[in-house]
Amino acid sequence: MHALVYTDTQKLIYKEEKNPKLVKDESIIKVSASGICGSDMHAYHGKDDRRIPPLILGHEISGIIDKGKEIGKKVVLNPLITCGSCDYCDNGREHLCGKRIILGMNKPIERQGGFAEYVSIPDKNIHELPKNLNMKEAPISEPCAVALHAVELGEKEIYKSLEGSNALVIGAGAIGLLCGLILSKIKNCKDITIVDPNDKRLKESLKYLDADGFKPDSKNIVSDHFDIIFDSVGLETTRQQAIRCIKPGGIIIHIGLTQPSGTFNFRKTTLQEITFIGTYCYTNKDFEKTLKILANKQIGSLAWIEYRNLSDGPSAFKEIHDGSCTFPKIILLT
Amino acid sequence: MHALVYTDTQKLIYKEEKNPKLVKDESIIKVSASGICGSDMHAYHGKDDRRIPPLILGHEISGIIDKGKEIGKKVVLNPLITCGSCDYCDNGREHLCGKRIILGMNKPIERQGGFAEYVSIPDKNIHELPKNLNMKEAPISEPCAVALHAVELGEKEIYKSLEGSNALVIGAGAIGLLCGLILSKIKNCKDITIVDPNDKRLKESLKYLDADGFKPDSKNIVSDHFDIIFDSVGLETTRQQAIRCIKPGGIIIHIGLTQPSGTFNFRKTTLQEITFIGTYCYTNKDFEKTLKILANKQIGSLAWIEYRNLSDGPSAFKEIHDGSCTFPKIILLT
Repeated sequence: MHALVYTDTQKLIYKEEKNPKLVKDESIIKVSASGICGSDMHAYHGKDDRRIPPLILGHEISGIIDKGKEIGKKVVLNPLITCGSCDYCDNGREHLCGKRIILGMNKPIERQGGFAEYVSIPDKNIHELPKNLNMKEAPISEPCAVALHAVELGEKEIYKSLEGSNALVIGAGAIGLLCGLILSKIKNCKDITIVDPNDKRLKESLKYLDADGFKPDSKNIVSDHFDIIFDSVGLETTRQQAIRCIKPGGIIIHIGLTQPSGTFNFRKTTLQEITFIGTYCYTNKDFEKTLKILANKQIGSLAWIEYRNLSDGPSAFKEIHDGSCTFPKIILLT
Repeated sequence: MHALVYTDTQKLIYKEEKNPKLVKDESIIKVSASGICGSDMHAYHGKDDRRIPPLILGHEISGIIDKGKEIGKKVVLNPLITCGSCDYCDNGREHLCGKRIILGMNKPIERQGGFAEYVSIPDKNIHELPKNLNMKEAPISEPCAVALHAVELGEKEIYKSLEGSNALVIGAGAIGLLCGLILSKIKNCKDITIVDPNDKRLKESLKYLDADGFKPDSKNIVSDHFDIIFDSVGLETTRQQAIRCIKPGGIIIHIGLTQPSGTFNFRKTTLQEITFIGTYCYTNKDFEKTLKILANKQIGSLAWIEYRNLSDGPSAFKEIHDGSCTFPKIILLT
């Protein structure tokens, strides 16, 4: 099969690779579409110790079952594979399973990803493509589940309703935009601000999201002002903006993984009783709920997604890397 | 009146000071007992920008009303003075009021503290001394309210019950010990570990607390092991121990204020979905609940408190500073 292989830092090659083999309780999917995620970019930059080259990246995937129990079925994949029998799996927090692995990772266990013609996946991770969701758009269900999980962790924690809160979203990539869309269109939050240093991407996001948009260093971003802040970037500077701008008693939801450590104002966290929640992926329930949200068109138009051919993957990664890409999400078509 | 005045870094002088004057809606309390808190020590070390010398420190106070509406009444003081009319005050989160001030602070507003013969306090902050609580012990209600608030924030957040959780308490000072006692005796938590580098203080705490006790660098403190961790110290190293030892999906409750910033493992916080909660003081409800807990002797013997005369305050501060003090709490008697 053809696949886009991550071979070295900032290097991807579209080349011939071995087809995956069918194993028990799994299916082989003929990939239709596969989205580029921030964590694929993190790997591309040589900064993800779970994704070591050579590796086929990609974990936001739709396609058709090619080998397995239900050949020909149109499907969307939940790429988070868990053991199914630990305390976390037994209690609806599968995403925290100690044996979890995601497609397109090879540490500690290898699972080749979706930037390829075919990919192997356990049957329990396969969801039928909802009727109202088209195959090209369907990979967006994965980042949308991440955003839904993040927003609902915040909703569980916040003292007032999300509807009555003001929110800051840091980063206008897919995760930031999806957090904003869920806040706005599903949780009825009416006071949303989104920041991004990339003007083009910010403007594109604001076509779809009812929010104020600014550069991160804008004077419009006031200290001690927001009830809830979503950091979809995860840099030392974005965390520092989050802790500076959060209101006493507020919630910071931390989704981004760009910079693993760094300094932070723990004094304000304590004196102003800030809750800082790390959020990772989604539960199986979140994933199912997301498919319903997308099938019901609850987050509006998805015209902010750009499509390219899988063979053009190298230039897509490069454009995301150098900031020349306007769209918050690129999905590669096989 | 006589007072223990903080005059410079690591310097306290027992000297003559002006008596406080009675103002509207306040009372003057003849102080009986006043406890030394970690934040008084922080000021003593010249590291608290809210407590600038010269200042009378102390905010854990019991006494008798000397001037005001109910002269002669035995009382305990809630030292956290709030505006009573903001959103936070209106919604039971008075401790986050933007105009709050604590006795024994002078920035941004001056309020002399309890290490003196007399102290002034708004009437709404005065609680009657419960019958079963003696005057000497009563100042412990303030740090006990801090600990109750911290434990109950954790209880609200944790996915399972505190009874079925394993807890690590970092620091065997009064706040750490009180968190442990509340976990053990009120929340029925049966698996508690407490760490402190001061052997004498750790041993003293373990006389009262049903827990395993170790030095912080002990090999018995295992990584990724605890459901909930209370950091009563707030150093960069204690926070790093907390994030290292917390289980995926676990809760870190951060109470200590020793080191305002520092690096932290945000990657684990995110990938393992850790919730990090800064906790500050207590609500009015917490304070009232604490008085009932103490009146009902629910946290057991308070023989771990040491008493000294107010005039001996300078040596008490010095012994806490150099670690030669065995007891988790010293209360000064006027």
